[in-house]
Amino acid sequence: MKRVLVTGAAGLIGRHTIEPLRARGYEVHATVRPGGRRPPPGSDVTLHESDLLAPHAASRLFERLRPSHLLHLAWVTEHGAYWHSAENLRWCAASLELVRTFFERGGRRALIAGSCAEYDWAYAHRHDRVGPLRPATLYGACKRALHLALERWAPDLVWVRLFHLYGPGESPRRLFPQIATALLRGQRASCRAANLVRDLLHAADVGDAIAAVLDAGVRGALDLGTGRGVELGAFALAIARACGRPDLLDRETVACDPSRPRVLVADTRRLREQVGWRPRFDIESGVAHAVAALSRAAGERR
Amino acid sequence: MKRVLVTGAAGLIGRHTIEPLRARGYEVHATVRPGGRRPPPGSDVTLHESDLLAPHAASRLFERLRPSHLLHLAWVTEHGAYWHSAENLRWCAASLELVRTFFERGGRRALIAGSCAEYDWAYAHRHDRVGPLRPATLYGACKRALHLALERWAPDLVWVRLFHLYGPGESPRRLFPQIATALLRGQRASCRAANLVRDLLHAADVGDAIAAVLDAGVRGALDLGTGRGVELGAFALAIARACGRPDLLDRETVACDPSRPRVLVADTRRLREQVGWRPRFDIESGVAHAVAALSRAAGERR
Repeated sequence: MKRVLVTGAAGLIGRHTIEPLRARGYEVHATVRPGGRRPPPGSDVTLHESDLLAPHAASRLFERLRPSHLLHLAWVTEHGAYWHSAENLRWCAASLELVRTFFERGGRRALIAGSCAEYDWAYAHRHDRVGPLRPATLYGACKRALHLALERWAPDLVWVRLFHLYGPGESPRRLFPQIATALLRGQRASCRAANLVRDLLHAADVGDAIAAVLDAGVRGALDLGTGRGVELGAFALAIARACGRPDLLDRETVACDPSRPRVLVADTRRLREQVGWRPRFDIESGVAHAVAALSRAAGERR
Repeated sequence: MKRVLVTGAAGLIGRHTIEPLRARGYEVHATVRPGGRRPPPGSDVTLHESDLLAPHAASRLFERLRPSHLLHLAWVTEHGAYWHSAENLRWCAASLELVRTFFERGGRRALIAGSCAEYDWAYAHRHDRVGPLRPATLYGACKRALHLALERWAPDLVWVRLFHLYGPGESPRRLFPQIATALLRGQRASCRAANLVRDLLHAADVGDAIAAVLDAGVRGALDLGTGRGVELGAFALAIARACGRPDLLDRETVACDPSRPRVLVADTRRLREQVGWRPRFDIESGVAHAVAALSRAAGERR
């Protein structure tokens, strides 16, 4: 029996892992913070209230549930603040304990969310591709530190470095909902960094990829992305077209620098060759899907 | 007022930091595990029982003591076992919480013990000098991870990479007490890796250097050593001479490999130029001092 415990299941990525995990035969359990967000209604998942930053919380849960698999996505994610918040240190410490107790209580395999912020963006700035692991932010450093400590110990661990994503469930302050919400209201919207090239996945594809990687048995670290960059300006234009208002979109460019490289694209060789995963959406179909979902949600709120 | 809290104060290094800290004007407090070892009798230090691996232990202590300085030496140190023990993960997590709560409760400056095991020993094997930070062991990885996470956040932190040391308080299974104890009993002793070149400091020098670094205000990472290597065979011969029994010493050589480099020597530029510290003992005087202490302790046990 495959029983997976998902942390961060109410988040942008976590909510999109539940169905793909079910489809691969997992019994899905998820932690939710007391009083915190829940996965969308109708999700086929058993919820367990647990504050993962509280001592022994994880260990008690493992004792009771005995999950065979762990999918650890929870982390400080507050838009903007997460780059330099001391909460990163707390999540790094709590994650070490979470993964250690998972395996010590008989867990078989764990997948943990890493980040493209573990890479040296100054190198990416110079070479237009990801290079050495030299994080420049506290967030990137704590993710890198967690992997560094665990990789030599955990018996069966896969570390997934996430690149950029968009889709249903995003914080309204992120690029996609900002532009789409304005345009759907008939207001002007601006893409301020139209010249940046990023590797953008629809969140449903991220969720599916994560379930595929967990199930595939591949170990070590891998990048999760499409492997192809798209200019944010083109992404914004796809949003505007899906909203039917390309006339309301402004596009500006920014100066690139070592902390804001022009190109940041995943190296997807391992994902393609060892997991055999490919995205379902391209930018046009993904954006159209996400705009439809946003539009539907806005309609329901009215 | 300078009030320092020392963790691991009963250990080989910690016990030798108390007097140098006192001499530099610090009020010295130390944590000791309930039922654990104590610093030697007569040490001018206030002891606090605290299990640093227990949740909130450190935070409660900081709340009560309000130390201005933290000297964090405690870690899993069981001879041999510490290289790969899961206890490294616990100490990494507990140390993140310790240092975070220290600063969040008003602490000014922290010194944390790192290790030469953070370096790539395969590189040292090829080049006879320390190179990139690429730890090969769980111990080295957890130390490196701790520094990586803390260095971007802690306001005033110095990270001291310890090389090799010997002296009063060592575990009897380590090189110096093994050889000296046998020779003092008139038994044969063997140095099995006489061709390895290591950077060896007397533990009293290590303690003094640590107090000097804490007090100097230097930040970032630095190596702690003499900067000069000595063949373990020459070290063993110095021990044999101090014991008056060079006739009983056997010296063998080992094959070097990437996990056992021929040369492992600290880069002491920062220690010399920015701290202005130099060791008190050379190998002869240090070994003579340590043999005398061991001989005295053996006499007291009889």
